[in-house]
Amino acid sequence: MHNTFTGRAPVSAIRHALSTKREDDFAQWYQEVIAEAEMAEESGVRGCMVIKPWGYGIWERMQRRMDDRIKAAGVENCYFPLFIPLSYFAKEAEHVEGFAKEMAVVTHHRLIGDGEGRLVPDPEAKLEEPLIVRPTSETVIGAAMSRWIQSWRDLPLLTNQWANVVRWEMRTRMFLRTSEFLWQEGHTAHADREGAMEETLRALEMYRDFAETELAMPVIAGEKPENERFPGAVATYSIEAMMQDGKALQAGTSHYLGTGFAHAAGIQYQDSEGAQQYCHTTSWGTSTRMIGGLIMTHGDDDGLRVPPMVAPHQVVILPMLRDKPEDAELLAYCEDLRKALVAQSAFGEPVRVLLDKRPAKATQKRWGWVKKGVPLILEIGGRDAAGGQVSMLRRDRLWNDAAKANFVGLPKAEFVSRAAAELEEIQSALYAEARERRDANITRVSTFEEVEAFFAQDKRYPGWVEAEWSRPTGEDLEAVVQKLKALKLTMRNTPLDADPVAGDCIFTRRPAVERIYIARAY
Amino acid sequence: MHNTFTGRAPVSAIRHALSTKREDDFAQWYQEVIAEAEMAEESGVRGCMVIKPWGYGIWERMQRRMDDRIKAAGVENCYFPLFIPLSYFAKEAEHVEGFAKEMAVVTHHRLIGDGEGRLVPDPEAKLEEPLIVRPTSETVIGAAMSRWIQSWRDLPLLTNQWANVVRWEMRTRMFLRTSEFLWQEGHTAHADREGAMEETLRALEMYRDFAETELAMPVIAGEKPENERFPGAVATYSIEAMMQDGKALQAGTSHYLGTGFAHAAGIQYQDSEGAQQYCHTTSWGTSTRMIGGLIMTHGDDDGLRVPPMVAPHQVVILPMLRDKPEDAELLAYCEDLRKALVAQSAFGEPVRVLLDKRPAKATQKRWGWVKKGVPLILEIGGRDAAGGQVSMLRRDRLWNDAAKANFVGLPKAEFVSRAAAELEEIQSALYAEARERRDANITRVSTFEEVEAFFAQDKRYPGWVEAEWSRPTGEDLEAVVQKLKALKLTMRNTPLDADPVAGDCIFTRRPAVERIYIARAY
Repeated sequence: MHNTFTGRAPVSAIRHALSTKREDDFAQWYQEVIAEAEMAEESGVRGCMVIKPWGYGIWERMQRRMDDRIKAAGVENCYFPLFIPLSYFAKEAEHVEGFAKEMAVVTHHRLIGDGEGRLVPDPEAKLEEPLIVRPTSETVIGAAMSRWIQSWRDLPLLTNQWANVVRWEMRTRMFLRTSEFLWQEGHTAHADREGAMEETLRALEMYRDFAETELAMPVIAGEKPENERFPGAVATYSIEAMMQDGKALQAGTSHYLGTGFAHAAGIQYQDSEGAQQYCHTTSWGTSTRMIGGLIMTHGDDDGLRVPPMVAPHQVVILPMLRDKPEDAELLAYCEDLRKALVAQSAFGEPVRVLLDKRPAKATQKRWGWVKKGVPLILEIGGRDAAGGQVSMLRRDRLWNDAAKANFVGLPKAEFVSRAAAELEEIQSALYAEARERRDANITRVSTFEEVEAFFAQDKRYPGWVEAEWSRPTGEDLEAVVQKLKALKLTMRNTPLDADPVAGDCIFTRRPAVERIYIARAY
Repeated sequence: MHNTFTGRAPVSAIRHALSTKREDDFAQWYQEVIAEAEMAEESGVRGCMVIKPWGYGIWERMQRRMDDRIKAAGVENCYFPLFIPLSYFAKEAEHVEGFAKEMAVVTHHRLIGDGEGRLVPDPEAKLEEPLIVRPTSETVIGAAMSRWIQSWRDLPLLTNQWANVVRWEMRTRMFLRTSEFLWQEGHTAHADREGAMEETLRALEMYRDFAETELAMPVIAGEKPENERFPGAVATYSIEAMMQDGKALQAGTSHYLGTGFAHAAGIQYQDSEGAQQYCHTTSWGTSTRMIGGLIMTHGDDDGLRVPPMVAPHQVVILPMLRDKPEDAELLAYCEDLRKALVAQSAFGEPVRVLLDKRPAKATQKRWGWVKKGVPLILEIGGRDAAGGQVSMLRRDRLWNDAAKANFVGLPKAEFVSRAAAELEEIQSALYAEARERRDANITRVSTFEEVEAFFAQDKRYPGWVEAEWSRPTGEDLEAVVQKLKALKLTMRNTPLDADPVAGDCIFTRRPAVERIYIARAY
């Protein structure tokens, strides 16, 4: 079983770097990946996490590439205040009902000593009007839009911000649901419904393509059912990804807000005939939650596997240092290799390479990088250097493909010239694997009994069902929601790009009008 | 006076785009530049501003280049919580005294209706321990460091975060002093004083070079006098820039914190002999305040002038559209020009070019871009296109240099090939101009009477004085501070890179030990 060229024992000689397997306890496995890959940790501040360099590095890569897409669409970045006066929330009643509950409320602007050596909020410094730490920025951005927009010539107004937001959460889970999280929120204003809907769907398509291209995470882009709409929205769209435990993760949303927010904030324009009109607005957002999606899509029993496009390091070089004079020569060889790789371009950017010179043993360091999910690991020993070779490990193949699971020896120049292609292959392979799993775990059903039977089966991670429905509203919809709730299920979305419907609604038995996905969800 | 080639009236035919001149009312001029260049505006939320696309675009360029420098120094980005439990502040008593006063305090986590149609903080949802919106993150990052550091092998620990912070300010001024602002804060831990001091000075030198290179803003790097230290710091260093009104602006700080914060947060390591030691820590930061410095360094009576290295657009192309069929040909010519420019590289990055196709008249749009301070403006009319020419305006020369103040005609290919050099020249010219003005406005004094006389002279913007002093402490220092305060003066810093001292202290008449700058300041 030894790879004769590299002379190394197969990686599988030490099997699995984590103590919990996905199939045994997915939630525990998720926490373990985050800890072992050093992505984030609890901060000691309720509901807030510390994002560590590896986790933040992935976010930076995601940000950079998403931001390029946002700019390419002509959207301009701004920055709006963290604090929103309480009265802004009251302006938009429906919005208040849905959102204005669990939020961080600033009531004082000074601390003083209480005379017993403790600090307390100064009763003399109570704010006249409490400030809310933004849970989302429609209201404060709406106020700015009402100042910025006068005439049809100012439209469309396309803005975005990268910011932190706070939603007080009772039960938190790192990346998926934290009281504070990082996100981008796009906010746009248009002259009419058509323009706003076009933007809503453009953002949705941007998210779909980003998730599938950059994150190698297959998603379904579609409209949320009425009961899952963003408070105040006329229509909410989402991308939904299937995690390895079969649950759905909403990984991005785009809302057509109609003229409701424009009425609340007074966002009006003079049309070309001189009449005052209300704008049609949109908002759309993605957040650090996507990192949770990345972990649960690509992680395996050895930790994370990061798609190369968003990996902080795409290649890690591990010189097998022996604390001897020969190390200098080995390091020079590795440094040459690093330079040659950095000069290569993958996905339109220079290849990101780390030469890891830390004093620990290469085999120990190897497992650290395996857990972090670096796409390509190169171990370079004295024999490799002398022979002008590299020993390469592809993280995506660690276990999936027994024949290729181990280090492969290659002439250095050959590796350098095919490094970018190798990274692109890994990106595609991760997508293909996730896509195949997702598709294999969606089952078409035509009656509600089939839904019940599907989720009652003795299968730990059942996946989703795809059904046809008649898009009921009002009490009929409420009945559906309750029926599903009893099974811990929710409707995810109605896909935009779906086969035509042919049968009856699984709930109402009336003629179906569209497809809908039903699943357990995060 | 007409430039015969371009056939255009000289730009100076319409003199000055702003209504306030620097010499008449500098503070008013500053607000006007920000408004007219569309950089930022009041948000309606007390002390918080909205940063608009042009201001935020400059910040993004600054961030990108500063971040490259931070990463190149081996510092890793993380993200720490927005909220800091009140008790964390109490741990570090000196820190509390200096900082823990004007801060935003979160006391509730829920809003409810009060039964009269208004929202109020829910008395049932009062936090057991109030949370502070971070004014700076030493305490919360110190808590993380105490978890992350075990042994000397974990040192140095080098972290940075890009974040928003809040310091409740009574009097605010856009970019210079706002309740919420954006910044980066570096936090590092080291085994000993030497390592920490080296990092403190490395960060300071990074800031100096960034200010002078990227922002074309000359600064003095030096140590703050004891009375101006960051609360809890052993030594505080700063970069100080001179604004056009002669006042000083502290544009970045770097602190050696000794072991005080390490004691407060329990940041300890086991040294190579197995003994427990406290770490020596540092922190260093720069913020959106630098944008204020940029405006007051480079702005002129027509608005902002942005140094090309941080300009969101370095070149703006204005086609002189006439709403006629010929426009198509003109636009095609401009688009070719844009593509040719984007393929050029300035300061190691592709040239950033905007082709401004908005329907307004080119001459109107021109003034918008002049006020925003785009380094190069190209106006292209039908005659330019037919002749394969461009008409170029260098923003830095709009008034300074009468002979070159107007549009210059150039063959397109020639302009394209020298565009990068032109941008580099503008960058240097802005620095040289600011440097010359700064140096001309520093006066050496050798007695305190000379200081009094200098600031009593009938000169609106007197500048700084440079003196020698004996670095008094305790009551002697307090006396100096009060003496200066009576003249509305402060000591800025003692330059690291200064001529040797030769005389006596202007305050104590004891032998001087170092130089110090004294000025009015923001």
